[in-house]
Amino acid sequence: MADPIIFYWDFTSPYAYIGANLIEAVAAKHDRSVDWRPLSLGHLWKAMPDRVPFPKSKMDYMAHDWERSARLHGLPIVKYPDPFPADAKLPRLLFYRLKAQDPARAAAFAKAVFRQYWGEGKDIAKPEQLAGILKAQGIADSELAAAAEDGAARQAVIDATAEAGRLQAFGTPTFVVDGEMFWGSDRIDHIDRWLARKD
Amino acid sequence: MADPIIFYWDFTSPYAYIGANLIEAVAAKHDRSVDWRPLSLGHLWKAMPDRVPFPKSKMDYMAHDWERSARLHGLPIVKYPDPFPADAKLPRLLFYRLKAQDPARAAAFAKAVFRQYWGEGKDIAKPEQLAGILKAQGIADSELAAAAEDGAARQAVIDATAEAGRLQAFGTPTFVVDGEMFWGSDRIDHIDRWLARKD
Repeated sequence: MADPIIFYWDFTSPYAYIGANLIEAVAAKHDRSVDWRPLSLGHLWKAMPDRVPFPKSKMDYMAHDWERSARLHGLPIVKYPDPFPADAKLPRLLFYRLKAQDPARAAAFAKAVFRQYWGEGKDIAKPEQLAGILKAQGIADSELAAAAEDGAARQAVIDATAEAGRLQAFGTPTFVVDGEMFWGSDRIDHIDRWLARKD
Repeated sequence: MADPIIFYWDFTSPYAYIGANLIEAVAAKHDRSVDWRPLSLGHLWKAMPDRVPFPKSKMDYMAHDWERSARLHGLPIVKYPDPFPADAKLPRLLFYRLKAQDPARAAAFAKAVFRQYWGEGKDIAKPEQLAGILKAQGIADSELAAAAEDGAARQAVIDATAEAGRLQAFGTPTFVVDGEMFWGSDRIDHIDRWLARKD
C-alpha cells in the first residue's frame, strides 16, 4: 500500500467534521489509508505571524455555508454549537491515547465526537459526554482519566500542531498526499482527481 | 423560465475565471440563465469595514490551489499573470457596453478576456489586446473607444459593486440563486445540488 493520506484536523472545525466523514471513502478508492492527526487549531493560528480574524460578512457566510454543506452531504449539523468554539483538549488527548492502541478505533471515536459536537451540539469538553461515547464504542471509561494524564498524547497534539505549522497550514482540514497539500473539505474531490492523474 | 443565476465576478479573480467556465452548464441543466455582473473587486474590498489581507501562507497555498484547480477542470492557467492583479477597468466597461446590446455576446467576450489573462498571461488593460479579442469575435473595434466613454457602462460597474456589497459579498465569484448566496467556484456543485432540492 502506498503512503497514507495525512489528515490534520481539530474538533473545533466544522469543515473538519465534514472532511472526517468524506476522506476515508476517497482514500479507500485509491488504496490509501488515512493517518488522523488532530491538532490545536487555536495554537496553529497563534503561531502564525499574520493570522487575522475573518471579516464579519465572511464569517456569517461561512456559518451559513458549513450548515448548508453538511446538509448537502447528508450530515446532521448545528450551526453554532454551545460553546463555540469547543474546548477540545480532552477529546484530542483521548484520540491519541486510543490511536496508540488501535488507529481504526481512534478514528471511529473521532467521528463520534465530531457527530456529538457538530451534529448534536453537545459539549465535548465534558467528561460525562465523552464517557458516553466510550461506552457506546465498548471502550473502558478508565481511558478518560488516563488520557488526561497521558504525556505521550499531549506531546502528539503539540507535534501535530507544529508539523502543520511547518507545512504552512493555516486551517483545517488540511490533507497531505504524497507531499501535496490540500485544504478544505471541498478539496476532497480534488484529492480524488489528483490521485488519478497526479497533476 | 425561472429567475436567472446572478453571477458577480471580476477579471482579477482566478476563481471567477474557473467559475465563468463552469456556471453556464449547471444553470442550463436547471433551465436557468446566467446574469453576468462584473464588479470592481478592489472597490468591493475597500468598502468592507474589516477587510484584511490574506496571511502569506494562505495566499501562497491559494495560488497553488487555483493553478491546480484550473488544471483539474481542463483550463489553461498562468499562476501569476503579469501584471497581477490586472487593471480590469477597460474590459469591464466593454463588457457592459456589449451586454446592453447582446448579453450572450458579452458573456462570450468575458470568457475570452478571462482566457487571455488567466490562461495566457496577456495584459488585458492594453487596448490592442482587447481589440484582438473583439476582432476574433466579429465585433467592431470602434466599441473600444466608445466603451471608455460609456457612462452607462461605468455606472453598471459601480452599481454591481454596490449591490454585491449590500448582499455582504466579500469576494468573487459570488452567485445568487433565488436569494441564496454561494461563494467560490467550488460551490457550483452545491448550486447544482441545491437547485435539485432547495435545502
